[in-house]
Amino acid sequence: MTKYNKVTPDLADTLTQICGEKNVIYENKEELSSYSYDEAGKLFARMPEIVVKPQNTGQVSKIMKLANENLIPVTPRAAGSGVAGATIPLEGGIVLSVEKMNKILEINKIDRVAVVEPAVVTNELCERVLEEGLFYAGYPMSVEMSFIGGNVATNAGGDKVIKYGNTRKHVLGLEVVLANGGILNLGGRIRKQTWGYDLMDLMIGSEGTLGIFTKIILNLLPAPGKTVTLLVPFDNIEKTTEAVSNIILAIKKLPLTVEFMDKISVELSSKYLKTTIPFQDKAEAYLIIEVDGDSQQELEDTYQKAGEACLKNGALDVFIGDDRKSAESIWRVRMVFAEALRLVDPYVSLSGDVVVPPSKVTELMEKTIKIANKHKVRVAIAAHIADGNLHPELFKPDYVSLEDWPELAEKIYVEITQEAIKLGGVGSGEHGVGFLKRDIFLNTKPQIELDIMRGIKNLFDPNNILNPGKII
Amino acid sequence: MTKYNKVTPDLADTLTQICGEKNVIYENKEELSSYSYDEAGKLFARMPEIVVKPQNTGQVSKIMKLANENLIPVTPRAAGSGVAGATIPLEGGIVLSVEKMNKILEINKIDRVAVVEPAVVTNELCERVLEEGLFYAGYPMSVEMSFIGGNVATNAGGDKVIKYGNTRKHVLGLEVVLANGGILNLGGRIRKQTWGYDLMDLMIGSEGTLGIFTKIILNLLPAPGKTVTLLVPFDNIEKTTEAVSNIILAIKKLPLTVEFMDKISVELSSKYLKTTIPFQDKAEAYLIIEVDGDSQQELEDTYQKAGEACLKNGALDVFIGDDRKSAESIWRVRMVFAEALRLVDPYVSLSGDVVVPPSKVTELMEKTIKIANKHKVRVAIAAHIADGNLHPELFKPDYVSLEDWPELAEKIYVEITQEAIKLGGVGSGEHGVGFLKRDIFLNTKPQIELDIMRGIKNLFDPNNILNPGKII
Repeated sequence: MTKYNKVTPDLADTLTQICGEKNVIYENKEELSSYSYDEAGKLFARMPEIVVKPQNTGQVSKIMKLANENLIPVTPRAAGSGVAGATIPLEGGIVLSVEKMNKILEINKIDRVAVVEPAVVTNELCERVLEEGLFYAGYPMSVEMSFIGGNVATNAGGDKVIKYGNTRKHVLGLEVVLANGGILNLGGRIRKQTWGYDLMDLMIGSEGTLGIFTKIILNLLPAPGKTVTLLVPFDNIEKTTEAVSNIILAIKKLPLTVEFMDKISVELSSKYLKTTIPFQDKAEAYLIIEVDGDSQQELEDTYQKAGEACLKNGALDVFIGDDRKSAESIWRVRMVFAEALRLVDPYVSLSGDVVVPPSKVTELMEKTIKIANKHKVRVAIAAHIADGNLHPELFKPDYVSLEDWPELAEKIYVEITQEAIKLGGVGSGEHGVGFLKRDIFLNTKPQIELDIMRGIKNLFDPNNILNPGKII
Repeated sequence: MTKYNKVTPDLADTLTQICGEKNVIYENKEELSSYSYDEAGKLFARMPEIVVKPQNTGQVSKIMKLANENLIPVTPRAAGSGVAGATIPLEGGIVLSVEKMNKILEINKIDRVAVVEPAVVTNELCERVLEEGLFYAGYPMSVEMSFIGGNVATNAGGDKVIKYGNTRKHVLGLEVVLANGGILNLGGRIRKQTWGYDLMDLMIGSEGTLGIFTKIILNLLPAPGKTVTLLVPFDNIEKTTEAVSNIILAIKKLPLTVEFMDKISVELSSKYLKTTIPFQDKAEAYLIIEVDGDSQQELEDTYQKAGEACLKNGALDVFIGDDRKSAESIWRVRMVFAEALRLVDPYVSLSGDVVVPPSKVTELMEKTIKIANKHKVRVAIAAHIADGNLHPELFKPDYVSLEDWPELAEKIYVEITQEAIKLGGVGSGEHGVGFLKRDIFLNTKPQIELDIMRGIKNLFDPNNILNPGKII
């Protein structure tokens, strides 16, 4: 266990000299407390001793050098939209917020890249590149809020991963400040290389434990064609999950999205939207499918094949959103999901994020429901189902106190994760290990793998000052 | 410098017990010598002391444990089709050939994966999955010869990387035997995860220096639609390279291929094929473009837009290969390239593999020609140009002896690589560092990065027995 030092007034002074007075929060408890938690919830909050907001790579480097020499823990923070507690300053110390480094530095049409600072909001980038006829394909569900830097740190996913892959697939280059203040430049404006060990992919998804990203080069794609969204009710979960691979084989290309929502999820979302969804009485589950096509004819051909595959797999009907309005009304059901759940239960736990092979999704759903029932906890399941990525969300039952609830919720997630791992899966598809999933991570990863991961952490951060208590 | 031990007769006996008599080559110099070099050429050959051909993971593990305990260097070998010398047993010792582990273990349509042993020939896999309506997108130019295991070890590329990415993008899971015989299972039949450090991507492209792959899970895609191939002559290199990003913006999707061949390359290929290529007198360079489409109409629309973009960028004409025969006749010009060069000069050096950002390709081509001219060496350039990946190939001039030629060729590559790095590129896009590019790699990578790479090598292989003298 590392013995850390406290942030002294002298050290706070030095940090203020580095970042400028208005970019440091010290002693103001109220302001500090906004940096004490993330979307995992205030129940897990821990107070930082100081918050610093550097404006450039040089400042980040100086802060890290100082922290490393003085054994002060540093918790990097992007938008704080994560749900695994990765930005909670468990050991106090410094919260290094990248919020002031928020510029899109360049959009280059020849190299087809965007060069950004870490605090660019995902949606801002998406819109800016679209103006140039280009497309950034790496956006999580929190696209309106999340920062690119945080997306890279958690290897964020979203609903388009089946076609485009997690954030990892979109990063071409990274400037990284290491624990000792050293600066690494990895990758670049290039799409291929076999030029030594792949340190860039090691950094991606490392949740602020190996380095701090100060500049990111992202791959851009030509903007995709038109899309159509289908809403497909099924009277049976098994039929729903089995339809998924048949849809892909039928349309002979990757859909943009195949989202799953169970009965409860749709019920609550529709109640929230003050509307009703077709077949709400009969349907046990729904798929939301989005496909694209370069021409109208191809698009029609594709969505018809997708619809036929659903009907062949027992769908009750297929609803087609082929104009913007009807597509949006389908999508809204999925988009309000989290809010809808929070409305009926402000303490609903939203941190489930297991992944299994597509062929094991039905089995994991059944096991998830069984585990929740055993604990007398109501569960709603939404899923990026074509990726095998399930989000089981747990409602606080009346018999459990507010105090005991986080522990029970995590206990249930542990059981679900254990089943996922037995089925060849993992405990997180896009949220990360952070702090909330750390115990189950450490308890289920083979020792040989943990030893290597510890070795790597030790290589990059021998004093364990970077985001201690997360992942490893 | 590690002091290795020799393979004693006792040790050879134990290895024979592990692998079986017919799977060991010992003392037979002629048979041993076939394992002393790869496609980098016999000039770089070094004799192994023993060759072992394990048939399963357990045997690989036992061999490594034995080698590690006895400080015997082990050089893993797949098809030996690499051109960077990564499979040359520099320190003698054991060559561990995976050639007997050559089974396709499973093709799963629901999970859309193939599970293979490392010695499956790339093309064999491509053909097998196509029978199931699926597509393996990771194939290098040596598709008829290379093993999947070698592709993963070198993060192999090919001509379809612009659309599908290097081999890295297609690997979902790896079983790896470590230097001490330990077995790591990374990834799985899953397409997303944020579950600790990304050890799998660290393994991919590590060229046998961190571990030996014994089982590989590969992502499969729905089989693509029809394709059309265009042959486009230009009278000027700059116009050719500048057309590339305009083609992508015009067709609004990623082409399957954009290959570049310069005048000399086309001349030699056409001579080899005993044919002539249109505009051979006037053209300074050619693009070969392949696009796909789900419908005939979309395909036509796409190749017409691609053709128009070429003409707008000064192409002399656009030739369309829209049936199999005409497309094949275009492709043959590219496919015979290496053989055609070897026919006029058996000592032609084929190991150039630099990458730069697309916007810097013209500049690097000019610099490459200038450097070759300076040394009075004739150069032919072929390129996976949309990836910025150039293969400058050097012909042995009469004024240089056979003995001095490899050194001069590498000297020229070093100069070209230095220019590529100055332009934001790297020294290898798909061949790897291996042994041939190691000096320039070590001389140009920043110290901070080399220190981390050495730390990683040391973590996985503290005795430096796995493929010593390669990469780091």
